Amino acid sequence: MQIGIGIIGVGTVGSGTVDILLEKKAYYQELYGLDFNITMVCARTDEELAPFRALGLTGSTQVQDIMTNPAISIVVELAGGYELPKSWIEQALTAGKHVVTANKALIAKYGAQLFPLAAKNKRHFLFEAAVGGGIPIIRSLQEALTGNSVNSIKCIINGTCNYILTEMSQKGSAFASVLAEAQSLGYAEADPTFDVDGIDSAHKLAILATLGSKQYVDFNKIHIEGIRRINETDIAFAREMGFVIKLLGVFSKVEGKTDARVHPALLPGDHLLASVNGVLNAVYLETDHLGPTLQTGAGAGKYPTASAVVADIVAIGRQGVKGGMSPIPMDFFSEGNPADLLPIEETSSAFYLRFTTRDETGVLASITKILSQQGISVESMIQKGHQKKDRVVIVMVTQVCKEGLMRQALEQINTLNFMVQPAAMIRFI
Amino acid sequence: MQIGIGIIGVGTVGSGTVDILLEKKAYYQELYGLDFNITMVCARTDEELAPFRALGLTGSTQVQDIMTNPAISIVVELAGGYELPKSWIEQALTAGKHVVTANKALIAKYGAQLFPLAAKNKRHFLFEAAVGGGIPIIRSLQEALTGNSVNSIKCIINGTCNYILTEMSQKGSAFASVLAEAQSLGYAEADPTFDVDGIDSAHKLAILATLGSKQYVDFNKIHIEGIRRINETDIAFAREMGFVIKLLGVFSKVEGKTDARVHPALLPGDHLLASVNGVLNAVYLETDHLGPTLQTGAGAGKYPTASAVVADIVAIGRQGVKGGMSPIPMDFFSEGNPADLLPIEETSSAFYLRFTTRDETGVLASITKILSQQGISVESMIQKGHQKKDRVVIVMVTQVCKEGLMRQALEQINTLNFMVQPAAMIRFI
Repeated sequence: MQIGIGIIGVGTVGSGTVDILLEKKAYYQELYGLDFNITMVCARTDEELAPFRALGLTGSTQVQDIMTNPAISIVVELAGGYELPKSWIEQALTAGKHVVTANKALIAKYGAQLFPLAAKNKRHFLFEAAVGGGIPIIRSLQEALTGNSVNSIKCIINGTCNYILTEMSQKGSAFASVLAEAQSLGYAEADPTFDVDGIDSAHKLAILATLGSKQYVDFNKIHIEGIRRINETDIAFAREMGFVIKLLGVFSKVEGKTDARVHPALLPGDHLLASVNGVLNAVYLETDHLGPTLQTGAGAGKYPTASAVVADIVAIGRQGVKGGMSPIPMDFFSEGNPADLLPIEETSSAFYLRFTTRDETGVLASITKILSQQGISVESMIQKGHQKKDRVVIVMVTQVCKEGLMRQALEQINTLNFMVQPAAMIRFI
Repeated sequence: MQIGIGIIGVGTVGSGTVDILLEKKAYYQELYGLDFNITMVCARTDEELAPFRALGLTGSTQVQDIMTNPAISIVVELAGGYELPKSWIEQALTAGKHVVTANKALIAKYGAQLFPLAAKNKRHFLFEAAVGGGIPIIRSLQEALTGNSVNSIKCIINGTCNYILTEMSQKGSAFASVLAEAQSLGYAEADPTFDVDGIDSAHKLAILATLGSKQYVDFNKIHIEGIRRINETDIAFAREMGFVIKLLGVFSKVEGKTDARVHPALLPGDHLLASVNGVLNAVYLETDHLGPTLQTGAGAGKYPTASAVVADIVAIGRQGVKGGMSPIPMDFFSEGNPADLLPIEETSSAFYLRFTTRDETGVLASITKILSQQGISVESMIQKGHQKKDRVVIVMVTQVCKEGLMRQALEQINTLNFMVQPAAMIRFI
């Protein structure tokens, strides 16, 4: 059976998708009896289209040419951005076409509007490539782990941050120098905000947490902290204690409420996530029946991501583009079914605290007094001379306490005269 | 929609399957609109059936009652063994019922006969629980990673062996004492042959390698070595070198041939598989586009395994028991499409060698002379006094060589008078 595909956007992932579809055309024909045909590729300019036209493909600068082409039954949106892709996907679904996207920001922001439209039109709307690149975590949550309920998720879902933290840890380098290196290697964007401030991770966590809990986790309600404030001292202290620092997405159900947040965290060195290094991504799930399970692999990159896009195309092809199996039910991905998010102040953690102070007597007494007034117990403490004269660095590890209490304590401590800079705080997971 | 299920075998996995289906009945109804109904459970005796009848389920000691019941559209075979389950599955498929099994030995042995029968009858025949317990590795290979071709597999797929090797490594204990402990904890059978001699791993590897290569890998042609000969010395030497010893299933394509084998192997300590400890299973895949990817989790146990059985039941339910999507194409799982297996002698590895000899002069010269006659280069060597007087243990690490040459060398070395016991040999991976 011939299946017509229209691809919008021929950047990195789009051109990887074209490559794989051409390379494996005969393989899919033989294995599944499916003839995937790239009917049209669409880009903003003829320059971008030139290499694809050179391959014999039909190119257009008008997305409408894809929408109105009756030979196209699967539209692949790989353009990026929010508003235009949203309107294209709406048009495609309304026109009875199936849709595949890799656009996590779009799913996190507009999924709640697009999934019902897909259901209404009985069309597939798949997005395996949106989280974890080529790791099949979306399909695992939607289809493979249906014998389980997901109790919690801990995940490393931003390769840029994981690369930076791994390099800082392995080479003892500072954040800024590793970031510059990552930018020169193409692992970080010129404007790294989206990655290093945790926004990309939060988009992905919103999707995973919604699939895991079957309740809509609103990206805007997720507490987000990035990795800019992590320094070499923190990483070295963590290692001394047998821990590593990772930027994690964290989801769990706490007494009926949903705890979803993105922040750097201290992980025990023997945790399965602790050895996930470099640009690798990993998703660690705790489920009711299977228990803990981990999937890891390339979370970004041309071909890893494109391979997930192609897997979605194959899934639609196998299920029959004209009907057959119903789309995966996504009714729960709706603003009308919101998860009740636990405010960050009400979450509980053990904390790593780093105080940089002037070298005065009474510093420790003042800090510990404020902590104890909030009922926070200190489990261990290390004091070290600082590279700069007359300064000391004090690191404390607390027992588990409510974050609200910790925030109140730190607010008070930060007003003390001997504090050289605001206290740094990292949660244990 | 109501979907009738007949379960044959109510041992550990069967009763876990009943529990999950009952527990999640309302959840599946709400999420998928599917009402999974356990129409009948079947066991050898009324005693075994009593607790299920007490739950209000219909029990029978006659498998025929399931086969002839028109309300049953999915037959779940969890009885174990080969011949009877094979005939039941044939009957069920012929009668137009879908089949789910957790029986890896059956799939490895009779899959090539049963998959064509399922295809002919247009019925699903699913087996997610057969490999890796609840880890969704079968579905990943069949459906989620279809944008990739699998170049190689390395896997830890026997929890008993992984538990024993982990304990030996962490506690410095001997094989026999850890085995006894594993038996008392229920992690090893009274007759542990199937597990510790690698047979169970080879059944599972045959399935994974067939799915990965899309060519039939015959279980009977897989080279199998178990873990009985691994001793504390080997594990200690491995650790000194920065390696761990794991029982691995290994598959790769080598110049058009298939290399498939099960044996203990030395893995670098920083390999993703190296930290998979205890009863955990893990499958490490190298693919053309995604690159390396790992899935890990509970590879055995009542609820982990049952959760995979239930995921298969849900998959069939969602696809519509009366038709809809075609079964996953398994035409390649056929004796008519055999993989060309590379004989073990033609594989290449670096080797760890342990020689236990009398303490004589000239021992080292004699051993190295034979190795060099076969063209085998020694990369490093450690000689240590043995606990017993007048004995020494020599450990050598060789460069990569053809296994056939190594076997010839060891055959000669083992005839030398000073050898106290045959040389031990472990491959690096």
